[in-house]
Amino acid sequence: MDHWVVGVDLGATKVALGLIDPQNRMVARRRFPTESSRGPAWAVERIAAAVHELQGSLPADVTISGSGICSPGPLDHASGMIYDPPNLIGWRDVPLRRMLADALHMPVCLEHDAKAAALGEFYYGAGRGARSMVYIVVGTGVGAAIILDGQVYRGEQNSAGEVGHITIDPHGEVCSCGAVGCVETFLSGPNLARSYRQALASLPPGIISAEQVTGESVVNLAEQGDVLALRVMAQASEALGTAVASLAMILDVDLYVIGGSVAKAGDLLLGPARQAVSRHAFRSVAGRIRIVPCALPDDGPILGCGWLVRQALENPGLRGVSNPYADT
Amino acid sequence: MDHWVVGVDLGATKVALGLIDPQNRMVARRRFPTESSRGPAWAVERIAAAVHELQGSLPADVTISGSGICSPGPLDHASGMIYDPPNLIGWRDVPLRRMLADALHMPVCLEHDAKAAALGEFYYGAGRGARSMVYIVVGTGVGAAIILDGQVYRGEQNSAGEVGHITIDPHGEVCSCGAVGCVETFLSGPNLARSYRQALASLPPGIISAEQVTGESVVNLAEQGDVLALRVMAQASEALGTAVASLAMILDVDLYVIGGSVAKAGDLLLGPARQAVSRHAFRSVAGRIRIVPCALPDDGPILGCGWLVRQALENPGLRGVSNPYADT
Repeated sequence: MDHWVVGVDLGATKVALGLIDPQNRMVARRRFPTESSRGPAWAVERIAAAVHELQGSLPADVTISGSGICSPGPLDHASGMIYDPPNLIGWRDVPLRRMLADALHMPVCLEHDAKAAALGEFYYGAGRGARSMVYIVVGTGVGAAIILDGQVYRGEQNSAGEVGHITIDPHGEVCSCGAVGCVETFLSGPNLARSYRQALASLPPGIISAEQVTGESVVNLAEQGDVLALRVMAQASEALGTAVASLAMILDVDLYVIGGSVAKAGDLLLGPARQAVSRHAFRSVAGRIRIVPCALPDDGPILGCGWLVRQALENPGLRGVSNPYADT
Repeated sequence: MDHWVVGVDLGATKVALGLIDPQNRMVARRRFPTESSRGPAWAVERIAAAVHELQGSLPADVTISGSGICSPGPLDHASGMIYDPPNLIGWRDVPLRRMLADALHMPVCLEHDAKAAALGEFYYGAGRGARSMVYIVVGTGVGAAIILDGQVYRGEQNSAGEVGHITIDPHGEVCSCGAVGCVETFLSGPNLARSYRQALASLPPGIISAEQVTGESVVNLAEQGDVLALRVMAQASEALGTAVASLAMILDVDLYVIGGSVAKAGDLLLGPARQAVSRHAFRSVAGRIRIVPCALPDDGPILGCGWLVRQALENPGLRGVSNPYADT
């Protein structure tokens, strides 16, 4: 069906919108700061204004049929609520989907940002043609969205995909979650910085200051050939490869798409991770596994939101897709 | 529908059959040695004779509608072939489902034995009432069958659930698969025996002979309070708990049913594993996880086979269920 839809990526610092035509092409964009301290009502008003602006740019006989919005979690896609996300301070128990549907007078879906990004990659990016896929976000934390047979796999309480918190070294560092040796302790940006600072501390004092080290700067240093940074990145790659191997042994999924800020390291991270997979997974399985960078770092979540709302429009009552007019 | 069906558990040493009434009660059984060296045709003939005997025991107006059979893998449930299982020497590329269907003149399903056992537990045993479940077999090896929303989850190449080969300690022992620190290196029967022998070797020679130690005897020694055996079992429990925590973080499934020979250790194995889960998984997730022994160690695979063929009878053309008359 010939639906025009809008995808909205509501992030901690910016909101990005895309107008998507019936052929799934993003034909117009809007972007503005989230200013989350002004609260959700203000953000919804701004989003609605942008959607109306996009509608105004279309010929008179073309109407935007629906909108998908994604935001940081925790959230419940089924009820359309977001629950005090750490990246949107003060947004407690916000019925974001209902608020936006009321402002837009059209069906709205709400999805977790990583899951929306995964859907975007699956249908329009690095996952095109695959049957199943795991999208791993490597940034401040490490998480994943699992797509099985083209649908988001959610688990029993909507918390599947916490790949950052599987244990890969019982002798490792304590994780922010309280457990020891989680994948995240090797792989997240803050942990890259911590590992680098620890490595520096073993050098004679005064050679270099580690005060300002971030995950991004460790990646940059490694790219410049800094030996300590390369060592930290090698550990991160090993952790990523171990995690992918474990996912492959459990899920028997072949394609792993890596996104997030640390993933910008590219083959510096992914190359050794591929080698680690071949050491950790069955040979018969390892040969099939592909670890690739995401193809749509900016547009993926918007296109994923567009896909979701199109699904809702074309399949009224579809399970796992929210339609504000279906549950009033 | 009022189908009477037969479930057949074809094992390395014995074949067990059960006649299952329309209320899913096993009302009669047959059992005989597999004598696998005589080859599959002989086994199929014996199974067919047993099914005819069970048919003969029923009133004249009652007919057995279908049969489900499970066997050790590797096998392909979709084609109904078994491929040279290590436990059925010489059974190369056997079209077991077709052979049995031809002998019985009724629809036949073929399933992997661990998956059939999982289905039996899910519908009639420790999994009743659950939405999803992971069945973990701890014996000579460590494997799992994953049930999501009531159906076997197979993965892209039918190899999902290789829980024994996820890495939990990069400083651990080399596994039979070639990787280091797999779950199986801590948990399988042969590895319990190896760990115990290694522990004994650190004692002064001549105190005790370790030649005859098996996984079973380590469990027995631990039950009798043997300190070395208890230490080996504690490591096994930790590995099981770590694996369950990783599964829970990835799959967000709450129920873990443990079967297999080593699982006979019961709470000696499962008690500390539950504590390990609470150290390795998010607190919000750990509180929901249940690790329980299987309830149907003997009848589970038979009942699971019965469930499968009943599904095939009631849903002609159902995906993932084999019907020999559907693909001729």
